[in-house]
Amino acid sequence: MDTIREVTAECLCIGDELLIGQVLNTNAAWIGQELGLAGIRTVLGRVVGDDQATIVDALRTTRTDIVLLTGGLGPTKDDVTKRALCEFFGTRLVRNPEAEARVVGLFSRLGRDPGRIQPADLAQAMLPESCTVLPNLLGTASGMWFEKDGRVFASLPGVPYEMQAIMHGSVLPRLQGMFRPPAIVHRTIRTTGMGETPLAERLSDWESGLEGEGIRLAYLPSPGQVRLRLSSYAGKDAAFTRNRVDRQVEALYRLIPELIFGEGRTELEEVVGGLLRESGQTLSLAESCTGGFLSHLITSVPGSSAYYIGGVVSYANAVKMAELGIPRDMLELNGVVSGPVAEQMAMGVRTALKSDWAVSTTGIAGPDGGTPDKPVGTVWIAVAGPDGVVSERGVFMGTRDLVISRAATAALNMLRKQLISAPRTKG
Amino acid sequence: MDTIREVTAECLCIGDELLIGQVLNTNAAWIGQELGLAGIRTVLGRVVGDDQATIVDALRTTRTDIVLLTGGLGPTKDDVTKRALCEFFGTRLVRNPEAEARVVGLFSRLGRDPGRIQPADLAQAMLPESCTVLPNLLGTASGMWFEKDGRVFASLPGVPYEMQAIMHGSVLPRLQGMFRPPAIVHRTIRTTGMGETPLAERLSDWESGLEGEGIRLAYLPSPGQVRLRLSSYAGKDAAFTRNRVDRQVEALYRLIPELIFGEGRTELEEVVGGLLRESGQTLSLAESCTGGFLSHLITSVPGSSAYYIGGVVSYANAVKMAELGIPRDMLELNGVVSGPVAEQMAMGVRTALKSDWAVSTTGIAGPDGGTPDKPVGTVWIAVAGPDGVVSERGVFMGTRDLVISRAATAALNMLRKQLISAPRTKG
Repeated sequence: MDTIREVTAECLCIGDELLIGQVLNTNAAWIGQELGLAGIRTVLGRVVGDDQATIVDALRTTRTDIVLLTGGLGPTKDDVTKRALCEFFGTRLVRNPEAEARVVGLFSRLGRDPGRIQPADLAQAMLPESCTVLPNLLGTASGMWFEKDGRVFASLPGVPYEMQAIMHGSVLPRLQGMFRPPAIVHRTIRTTGMGETPLAERLSDWESGLEGEGIRLAYLPSPGQVRLRLSSYAGKDAAFTRNRVDRQVEALYRLIPELIFGEGRTELEEVVGGLLRESGQTLSLAESCTGGFLSHLITSVPGSSAYYIGGVVSYANAVKMAELGIPRDMLELNGVVSGPVAEQMAMGVRTALKSDWAVSTTGIAGPDGGTPDKPVGTVWIAVAGPDGVVSERGVFMGTRDLVISRAATAALNMLRKQLISAPRTKG
Repeated sequence: MDTIREVTAECLCIGDELLIGQVLNTNAAWIGQELGLAGIRTVLGRVVGDDQATIVDALRTTRTDIVLLTGGLGPTKDDVTKRALCEFFGTRLVRNPEAEARVVGLFSRLGRDPGRIQPADLAQAMLPESCTVLPNLLGTASGMWFEKDGRVFASLPGVPYEMQAIMHGSVLPRLQGMFRPPAIVHRTIRTTGMGETPLAERLSDWESGLEGEGIRLAYLPSPGQVRLRLSSYAGKDAAFTRNRVDRQVEALYRLIPELIFGEGRTELEEVVGGLLRESGQTLSLAESCTGGFLSHLITSVPGSSAYYIGGVVSYANAVKMAELGIPRDMLELNGVVSGPVAEQMAMGVRTALKSDWAVSTTGIAGPDGGTPDKPVGTVWIAVAGPDGVVSERGVFMGTRDLVISRAATAALNMLRKQLISAPRTKG
């Protein structure tokens, strides 16, 4: 009988800028996601500095089937990965004519004079003799593929979109062919509206049943949201494992229907966009404390111009009065952070921009501006639609960025609930 | 004579969610920054999964003076860091009354009934007997401090703001007292308007002189920007090293004055905000392709309400006409992505919102909507001010997110240049 042989990987990222925290390591996260989808388990992530001896030492202590290196391949003087690879694999740098042709071609595509290509750029075509070169069509740093004792080492540039293109174009297909990894069944359920601890308590009985099914659960909190990830190794019968995970997810939907807004990488703004698109309805926004962030989330979705009319960021009270029709005495009577003002903002922008739906936010993002009865983090959110307007008050914890982000999440979720409960056709 | 003894650290982050890339490792970046400022050099970052044996194995292979662990301390069932620490240090979990009192206190501060505290929350007060407990005032997971053979191991929660508060409140002061690390002199110069490769070529002579001065240079590119980080270990005379670095930075300012917009963590939106605040002038925005992101950047700066009036996100052409006064025949004649439309948007919002300055963007963020003469990434930006209006066209590379981000950076930089060249007083 077959036993499942797990294929393991290490992500080894190179760069002083990562160690000292001036650049966030988004490459490791992206690679972990892609490998996971391919059934390869990332068991270690390491970050080391731009130092040849350190990199060689790190290479010597790798243990996984696959080692993916990123970074340290740029044309500037602080990049030493190639020399470390030559030392570790006992090879030397030689001129690679194909890579050189790609560097020259890239310059002409960018409209730059090939006669002005710099020596540092041409040096990008000096590559280790023993490696298989992985073409980079978007930049000057080629990827490199080495095999040693049945293990694979692939070295990729640190620029995210170049690294990603080489992964999809060369590395992942080669890894699939070489290792034929077992499938991992993942499902990630996205929730909003309840924190990690009360959610875990509410799900405790359901969670206890997962272990016997060979399913692992992880709680992944982010501002205003908790993702629940179920994962299980598929044996010979992947459909059987998929079915077992699906049954547990169905049970979860029955337990917390009101908290689940989507699955996988589906963001709340995509769910809202999908609901608007399906029903042929339109949206406008009136933002005060979220300052344009809600509009940014909505417009981060490709194709959002089909349903998003536009918005007003009414930071100054004069804009609330002139553009959104808030009466001065309403501002004076209730204060700018209040339910009536939020409702009038939503109704005002809905009328001015002629949309089916409108969402507004008004609050105190901090760090200053709080009062005893309206502390920093107090936000009123309103949703206006064909049948009227509703408003809610929330007090969101954390820094200015977190308050803005949590308020925007709450506003999107409030709109989602209104869209679901409203009739799904226009008018 | 004293020699400098470098104090080294490893950041060991625990969590399957980091390995599979569902959560970005912002903690490692933040810790690297803070340790660097304290003169402690982070030489290794590792990420391992939520597995006791793996964590113990990772602890056994640490080599640095300081090991900072994050994550794996939550009340849910997938967190095993405490058990791994007990195994590694040969101790056991015991009830800690002070930590339990903090858990109860936290619940009552959040307005929750202490009688409803869950067993999982009380289990957060079970801590290794041999550790020094580092109080967490913001959450239920205490920090833990262990010493072994002159080395320090500190375990902190993975929730960023809780980890940060314990670092500032307990860990950094203790590390400073125990290791008295040598100072590292850092200066980071922020540039925009030129890519990494041409910039490196332009700075090549200057860069060659740095090594003899004991100064290390790193190029840190991000969308639309390159940061130049100079760093040097200070000997006994920190002022001398500081002076040496400062002289090189002065030379850099003379070489590329037009590309430098600030230093350190100062963002372009803060520089622009500072210029507006100093001159007592105000700003409004009219965004199409940036969809609110420019407004979000402006309002991410605390106190931005002093100079930011508000903005219009004019996604639909109807909004451009109704709110910004763009004549229909101008849209038809030039197309919506054009210099005249960008200029009219800026002038229109400046008039409507009565601001001193206004910035507009109109372009094609993609992935769809490009044409042969206006490819995806084409963006017109205009800045209107007391003396008139100027516009520029850019073609920005990359995904939708990158086009939006690069266009917003270019818009901020265009406004910065106009603010600098304009008379610095109102009217």
